[in-house]
Amino acid sequence: MESDYGVPRELSPLQKSRSIYHPDLPSCLQGTTVRVEFGDATTVADSAGAHAISQSFPHTYGQRLVHFLKATAKVHGAQVISDLPAMRVGVVFCGRQSPGGHNVVWGLHEALKIHNPKSILLGFLGGSEGLFAQRTLEITDNILSTYKNQGGYDLLGRTKDQIRTQEQVNAAMAACNALKLDGLVIIGGVTSNTDAAQLAETFAEAKCSTKVVGVPVTLNGDLKNQFVEANVGFDTICKVNSQLISNVCTDALSAEKYYYFIRLMGRKASHVALECTLQSHPNMVILAEEVAASNLTIFDLTKQICDAIQARAEQEKYHGVILLPEGLIESIPEVYALLQEIHSLLRRGVSVDKISKQLSPWASALFEFLPPFIRKQLLLYPESDDSAQLSQIEIEKLLAELVEAEMNRRQKEGSYKGKKFNAICHFFGYQARGSLPSKFDCDYAYVLGHICYHILATGLNGYMATVTNLKNPSNKWRCGAAPITAMLSIKHDGRAMTIGKPLVHPATVDLRGKVYELLRQNARKLLLDDIYRNPGPLQFDGPGVESRVVSLRVEDLDYMGRIKELNEYLDKVRSIVKPGCSQDVVKAALSAMSSVTSILSVMSSNGSSA
Amino acid sequence: MESDYGVPRELSPLQKSRSIYHPDLPSCLQGTTVRVEFGDATTVADSAGAHAISQSFPHTYGQRLVHFLKATAKVHGAQVISDLPAMRVGVVFCGRQSPGGHNVVWGLHEALKIHNPKSILLGFLGGSEGLFAQRTLEITDNILSTYKNQGGYDLLGRTKDQIRTQEQVNAAMAACNALKLDGLVIIGGVTSNTDAAQLAETFAEAKCSTKVVGVPVTLNGDLKNQFVEANVGFDTICKVNSQLISNVCTDALSAEKYYYFIRLMGRKASHVALECTLQSHPNMVILAEEVAASNLTIFDLTKQICDAIQARAEQEKYHGVILLPEGLIESIPEVYALLQEIHSLLRRGVSVDKISKQLSPWASALFEFLPPFIRKQLLLYPESDDSAQLSQIEIEKLLAELVEAEMNRRQKEGSYKGKKFNAICHFFGYQARGSLPSKFDCDYAYVLGHICYHILATGLNGYMATVTNLKNPSNKWRCGAAPITAMLSIKHDGRAMTIGKPLVHPATVDLRGKVYELLRQNARKLLLDDIYRNPGPLQFDGPGVESRVVSLRVEDLDYMGRIKELNEYLDKVRSIVKPGCSQDVVKAALSAMSSVTSILSVMSSNGSSA
Repeated sequence: MESDYGVPRELSPLQKSRSIYHPDLPSCLQGTTVRVEFGDATTVADSAGAHAISQSFPHTYGQRLVHFLKATAKVHGAQVISDLPAMRVGVVFCGRQSPGGHNVVWGLHEALKIHNPKSILLGFLGGSEGLFAQRTLEITDNILSTYKNQGGYDLLGRTKDQIRTQEQVNAAMAACNALKLDGLVIIGGVTSNTDAAQLAETFAEAKCSTKVVGVPVTLNGDLKNQFVEANVGFDTICKVNSQLISNVCTDALSAEKYYYFIRLMGRKASHVALECTLQSHPNMVILAEEVAASNLTIFDLTKQICDAIQARAEQEKYHGVILLPEGLIESIPEVYALLQEIHSLLRRGVSVDKISKQLSPWASALFEFLPPFIRKQLLLYPESDDSAQLSQIEIEKLLAELVEAEMNRRQKEGSYKGKKFNAICHFFGYQARGSLPSKFDCDYAYVLGHICYHILATGLNGYMATVTNLKNPSNKWRCGAAPITAMLSIKHDGRAMTIGKPLVHPATVDLRGKVYELLRQNARKLLLDDIYRNPGPLQFDGPGVESRVVSLRVEDLDYMGRIKELNEYLDKVRSIVKPGCSQDVVKAALSAMSSVTSILSVMSSNGSSA
Repeated sequence: MESDYGVPRELSPLQKSRSIYHPDLPSCLQGTTVRVEFGDATTVADSAGAHAISQSFPHTYGQRLVHFLKATAKVHGAQVISDLPAMRVGVVFCGRQSPGGHNVVWGLHEALKIHNPKSILLGFLGGSEGLFAQRTLEITDNILSTYKNQGGYDLLGRTKDQIRTQEQVNAAMAACNALKLDGLVIIGGVTSNTDAAQLAETFAEAKCSTKVVGVPVTLNGDLKNQFVEANVGFDTICKVNSQLISNVCTDALSAEKYYYFIRLMGRKASHVALECTLQSHPNMVILAEEVAASNLTIFDLTKQICDAIQARAEQEKYHGVILLPEGLIESIPEVYALLQEIHSLLRRGVSVDKISKQLSPWASALFEFLPPFIRKQLLLYPESDDSAQLSQIEIEKLLAELVEAEMNRRQKEGSYKGKKFNAICHFFGYQARGSLPSKFDCDYAYVLGHICYHILATGLNGYMATVTNLKNPSNKWRCGAAPITAMLSIKHDGRAMTIGKPLVHPATVDLRGKVYELLRQNARKLLLDDIYRNPGPLQFDGPGVESRVVSLRVEDLDYMGRIKELNEYLDKVRSIVKPGCSQDVVKAALSAMSSVTSILSVMSSNGSSA
């Protein structure tokens, strides 16, 4: 099988035209010389966890932020990367394929060869399994030619992908040593980047000379924090799904007799569902985060949907489109409790057909109430991140059935007088994941690939490649690197299986954030007025090619920019208040700074962040 | 609700840019004057049915073919359409929405207004129900502005849509009389055009002055015959689905652990599945026509898929993509027999929960063998064309389950030694149907709309608008009209419910045709070599915008062109063999013509056609 990886292949005319597209580099990475500026030492957002995290990551915690700047930028103390010794770097796809992943490999390869043509990039074949087994393919321009700007991970493949057990970590280290790697680049989402952080720490501890770099590539869009504005693949996934959702909306409006229940991929967090709602304006979306925050039961949800259907029926509308994130099932409190019981029995080796008898009376009652198809799906073995197999659980069918039963009941009882309710269910998952990546994802991934090189050339370990200011055109993007340890946190909310272990946690939709606010403002119009909007199929030419996802446009991200701006203010204060300045100036500065300091102390001790 | 039809709406940037696109007219329709050339009187392909059809359609059978030509084209006996009295025309969407339908309305409206600004186009609101109820919306440029080149049927809506019972036909006639319509344009597929033929005959019989015109608009692509090369919507549907199938192929190749079973819309015929296979190169497709021709049972099918999976496993491939047309379920002989029993019980009013007990022992055994989800779906009430509710029957899930059981059995028994088989099922239906139409469908529908006007202006009744030479650029298209009666046939194969009734039958995939031949030639490579191909999302700019579906490129269609060419030969013979020419010339002509005539007599009496 290995022999099939990286083989040249027949491309369609559109694939061909995409394969010759070459993204621009931001000005800071252009040319053969790049300056590296070190910022402050990093901490974590959750100050309560800082101590525990620093204990677990003694070698890689508290490293400094890094900015990559144009060689001409005059910055005090910056180091210059120009011609450098040849490097040997390995790259591995971890976790679910995300459109754009190939371009990270391309960008990294290009940067390596620009700085020293003797540098070698080895791709691990078949994900982390290939890493453990030391199965590699040397990346060349020739091999890349039919994979540039193309979807999927089929250049190298991937497997189940975790690097977590002692055995796995040892195998990874053995591979890096045997192949004499200067760097190992891990392309993946929250789980893979947690693994990358752990690997970097272990390598440092063991004095292994391979440096580990993480790249934020996940269609879920949930690897978001102060340093990371967006993930490779999210833009494409949302655009492809929004196209399909819009098509279904048009269909609903033409036939006027169906309610479409559409489940979307995206794991625990509902970013994909939220973004698609803002792009295509379906009638309703139920975010997992809302359900968790309000402790809504499955019956509350059913009632909520039925009430919406009834409100539409009063306007003589008998069609509609309802989006459901796949993570919804785990956000419903009683279903989550049931899943926890099932998973713990499964882990104890109880066979599937005996589980229902060993459930607590309460969980058993819920289980028996559910239709057979969903029971079968709830009994699936949990995933490596301890969550249920979300892509296999048809929450859309469950809700459609419950809603139908409730609407029939209301009709019989006379409280609903409209036409019969008809549902059609869809799952939009695998049909978007392998898509040709959008221009944004092509550009972003390619630039991240270049940054990986600069991180390794600087000799950094345990960093993630970052690009900020993403909402602007790519020539204005800012490039940098942040220690992955600064993104770790420890969950205490009593629901995570992994209490006490520092992880890069998936960022959920912020119910106090601007993006959610935008949804709330429009929710009633979406529900009742059918203001469907069709962004159309992903275009690679013409207007709209440069469009960004709504969440990137609305959110006020630029954290790194603000940190830099703040530092400029601090520098300015220092330069104004030099010995010799007037007593009044010193007094004013002192008073102002003391006030700022006490405000910040209070805010920080109240604990974290958005 | 009616007040919502045709309302202006917010368009996305891509929708806006599409809404200002204006298709070109073929040269024959340009300007304000068009010549009408009458060809020969038509017959039907199935000569055995000709008598019965002519009896059923005394007023509309045997009408002449019509060609619309450039005003400057000098053709003997051609009639000229230029300025004409104002007309009142009604237009109605019948049957399933198909991308491009809106452009028929636009083209028709534009042609009406060009030839007389006082002409009026009334759209019936909510399909045939709106026709019966005389609910109309006067079409204006203003109303059309946000619907030009847009998907769906939401400008006017549609309902269940049949015009068949005496009551329905009377209501339609009453509407046409009350609204003083000169013409009624019916936009739809095989069923709706059968209805149009019947309506035209009834109107002629009743001396109703409204002329009926049919337009071939159906995403199934099954309204194909000597006169009709393609249907509006098929191009878009195949392109959108091929994109998604390709994405899934890329996904399969990246993860290498799933078999995807994908069911495609398209009713009884497998045109969509075949075309998508040729565009995206999945591993396997099972056409309903193949299954029917070979009388394959559900167990044969299961075995066939399992053997393919095993052949791939021998090459260490544990992933794949298998396409299944929705019509497959009805093509499996024993399932079809079961469905016939169920439908006949349902029609007799037997309630769903009592049906299984009233089945014949043989059908009952099959029914009980099937998993519960499929049993429930088989029990759904049949559609108006007597077929099962194909879009609701999850044949992909049934086959995936049977294949999984068989692979497990083979593994246990030791005849299969590969990895565990994993299936993921998808139904690609509603997410393509509402798509923005491709440039081809926009152009084709718009031109058909213009032709409808010319048919009505010529005073023709019971005709379908036709465009031929479609594989070439639109300026070379040939425009005409053919009597719908010439497309009727009577089925005798013992399986159609409708024996003895002349219908426009859906054209199935021709297993002796060039398109199927192309599939057969490549089947082995598709199955084993993973030559996946991604045509990418539908583009409206750049290369590939003008691409045609493979079937249109491969098939050697131009029937109308050949009829014209033949006529030219006949004319030439007549002009050479004029009284006064030599005896030898007459003898040669006589001998050749007598030979041609006897060959053709033999061929015709053997019965029909491809």
